[in-house]
Amino acid sequence: MKVVNWAKLNNNEKIKVLKRSEESNDTNLQTTVAEIIQQVRNKGDSALIEYAQKFDKANLSSLSVSRQEFAAASANLSEQEKQAIISAAENIRYFHKQSAPKGFEYEKDGINLGKMYRPIDKVGLYVPGGSAPLVSTLLMLAIPASIANCPTKVLTTPPNSKGKIAPAILFAASICGIDNIYKAGGAQAIAAMAFGTQTIPKVHKIFGPGNKFVTEAKIQVSQAIGGAALDMPAGPSEVLVIADIDANATFVASDLLAQAEHDKDAHVILVTTCKDLVNKVLDEIKHQSEYLSRKNIITHSLSKSSIIVASSIDECFMISNQYAPEHLILHIANAKESLNLVQNAGSVFVGQYSPESIGDYASGTNHVLPTYGYSNMYSGLDTIAFMKAISFQQVSAEGIKHIGPVVETLANLEGLDAHKNAVTVRLESLK
Amino acid sequence: MKVVNWAKLNNNEKIKVLKRSEESNDTNLQTTVAEIIQQVRNKGDSALIEYAQKFDKANLSSLSVSRQEFAAASANLSEQEKQAIISAAENIRYFHKQSAPKGFEYEKDGINLGKMYRPIDKVGLYVPGGSAPLVSTLLMLAIPASIANCPTKVLTTPPNSKGKIAPAILFAASICGIDNIYKAGGAQAIAAMAFGTQTIPKVHKIFGPGNKFVTEAKIQVSQAIGGAALDMPAGPSEVLVIADIDANATFVASDLLAQAEHDKDAHVILVTTCKDLVNKVLDEIKHQSEYLSRKNIITHSLSKSSIIVASSIDECFMISNQYAPEHLILHIANAKESLNLVQNAGSVFVGQYSPESIGDYASGTNHVLPTYGYSNMYSGLDTIAFMKAISFQQVSAEGIKHIGPVVETLANLEGLDAHKNAVTVRLESLK
Repeated sequence: MKVVNWAKLNNNEKIKVLKRSEESNDTNLQTTVAEIIQQVRNKGDSALIEYAQKFDKANLSSLSVSRQEFAAASANLSEQEKQAIISAAENIRYFHKQSAPKGFEYEKDGINLGKMYRPIDKVGLYVPGGSAPLVSTLLMLAIPASIANCPTKVLTTPPNSKGKIAPAILFAASICGIDNIYKAGGAQAIAAMAFGTQTIPKVHKIFGPGNKFVTEAKIQVSQAIGGAALDMPAGPSEVLVIADIDANATFVASDLLAQAEHDKDAHVILVTTCKDLVNKVLDEIKHQSEYLSRKNIITHSLSKSSIIVASSIDECFMISNQYAPEHLILHIANAKESLNLVQNAGSVFVGQYSPESIGDYASGTNHVLPTYGYSNMYSGLDTIAFMKAISFQQVSAEGIKHIGPVVETLANLEGLDAHKNAVTVRLESLK
Repeated sequence: MKVVNWAKLNNNEKIKVLKRSEESNDTNLQTTVAEIIQQVRNKGDSALIEYAQKFDKANLSSLSVSRQEFAAASANLSEQEKQAIISAAENIRYFHKQSAPKGFEYEKDGINLGKMYRPIDKVGLYVPGGSAPLVSTLLMLAIPASIANCPTKVLTTPPNSKGKIAPAILFAASICGIDNIYKAGGAQAIAAMAFGTQTIPKVHKIFGPGNKFVTEAKIQVSQAIGGAALDMPAGPSEVLVIADIDANATFVASDLLAQAEHDKDAHVILVTTCKDLVNKVLDEIKHQSEYLSRKNIITHSLSKSSIIVASSIDECFMISNQYAPEHLILHIANAKESLNLVQNAGSVFVGQYSPESIGDYASGTNHVLPTYGYSNMYSGLDTIAFMKAISFQQVSAEGIKHIGPVVETLANLEGLDAHKNAVTVRLESLK
């Protein structure tokens, strides 16, 4: 990790040290993904079965997970694993119920008005595959979709080379009430959910993280006529840690390492007011990474990451707000009070006993969060993303007498006399 | 207007009668807009001044609205006009305060967690020009931005050929606390707000309706690296009216006409259970449109619109939910109770005294709403769109003892041992 002193950087250097790896418009990627989407639109299920063979090395006789596969899942997990999934689900459910949006209604000057929330009718959930079953991602998508009460929840996830889905995924799906699971991954899964195939229902909005093919496919289908909306733009995962003189170097190092193991593009920044902490943390990183299985990935992502020495806690937060991190961890005195200083972040982990992995798995908050500086203007995933708001207004005869003339004047100002007329004919009838 | 009987249509005909005018990928439009954006990025203010000359026929010495221009605005409006703007603003402010999202916090098993909301730091508001000053659009954008407390609010709107902004716009801006108004319209205004120029500050998110150039520019800058997010996708404005046997044909016709005058692509649908109402409404449309100034536009948009005769109120709502209208007007008995049947709509106008123009101007609800079927998955504009949510969690020593083992088990299942390690080092320290 590069160590820099913020006060000694010029403006360009400051921008550079907070810069994520450049995302470029990769036209090869765009073309490849566009072709996959077109194939799925043209050929439906059979394209998915071909891609499963090509990309997942799986021979599928059916895209759907069978009842038997669901039933077998539970037997393939230990009691401890099942209990852990159940506990995490419980906490996530509790948080997402608290955060579910509530409608309201009031009466003012003869008008009754308010807002009501409705679930999105058909939602698509994407759980990436890869080296391990991302059971936590399934919980983070399926639980808010189920609290929102979306009638159709379609889940796609890539099969392994035996054409199977990991038992932990199936078990977690069962306890979330998801029974439509399809064996499809990558851009082809996104295309299938956006446009529908013989087996996979078309959805209105697609949720979930994924590699660059998945991300590009989500963008392309969101722009296509008749496609599907996406949850939020996505980039590599990232953390910014703020630490002061009392921070525990062991804990700080463990937090930087946890982020760094995600993938080679993961971005890790430590901002500290305490120069003496820097070497302690670097030593701890060296020590702890010795016994971590994803050491190679960690080494790669840390090589592009930085430690910034700042002159005050206020400056630390200024730097953090400028960076707008996905995850922000506070190893500082009065951490809770400092939440006031946070303007941009996906999720904040407050104090020494709050590692990011708590929120990744089990505290209850959602782990699908805005990356790549998007916490400037986007929120993390939550129940509301699976719903939409509808406003309403009911005007009484008294109400239109009261507000009608205001509307007439404004419609007149804008030169829209049919708008004015719609009020006038009603006022006339009440004379 | 075409009159059809729903029961007699086959599936394809049903789809066709609810179909909006086809949006095509217009590559000419895309190229033109991309060039404008590039010019603004390269040349900044001077590109804006050139475009103002080219598109608005205005010679601008400055892009900013001066203090003098602001001060003069009030004198150029009647008391009635000013009072109408103030009344509307008051109602809009009241609604958007009610709907502002509230953070929450709770304690569970040794973890304190919750959610807080923060304004988006820099927002861009676009108010279209055209034949008349859209003062109502200014209110709909500026008021939620000010309730959200966004520190930087940038407003662009095209000047008239004298290089001026309409007094009503300036007056409304003043009462909303907007003092950064810039004379720029079209794709060039969107580019300026997304990337910044010498005069116009760069923003993080851009709000507001516009013509196809504005809409295309919003899409392009939202996809560009370092660009700006957009509020929602946009298409032509539309209304679906449900009417039963007791509906007042005069009122129904006035509502269809108000929507039809927006522009030639506006889409208007009447769904009714009462066959006898159809001719009464058509007669009223003929009668009322005689004295409306935008009769040509109305004739054009009504020529592509339909009246659907349905067999029950439930069927009317089924059709409406399938269409997913921007505006839904209910001219039926027990209209308020029927809100339960509404699944997809931007805003609902309940009962005979609730014309859409009430909500367009002054009831308090927002008039920036999802069009083109997007009410399936998008909400109308509201205070929350100017904010983002940040979740947080603070785990106590007791809390990590409780939840730590769950996290260790799940991290193990996913093969992420640095995630597990971040918990383990903390649990070890507490032994």
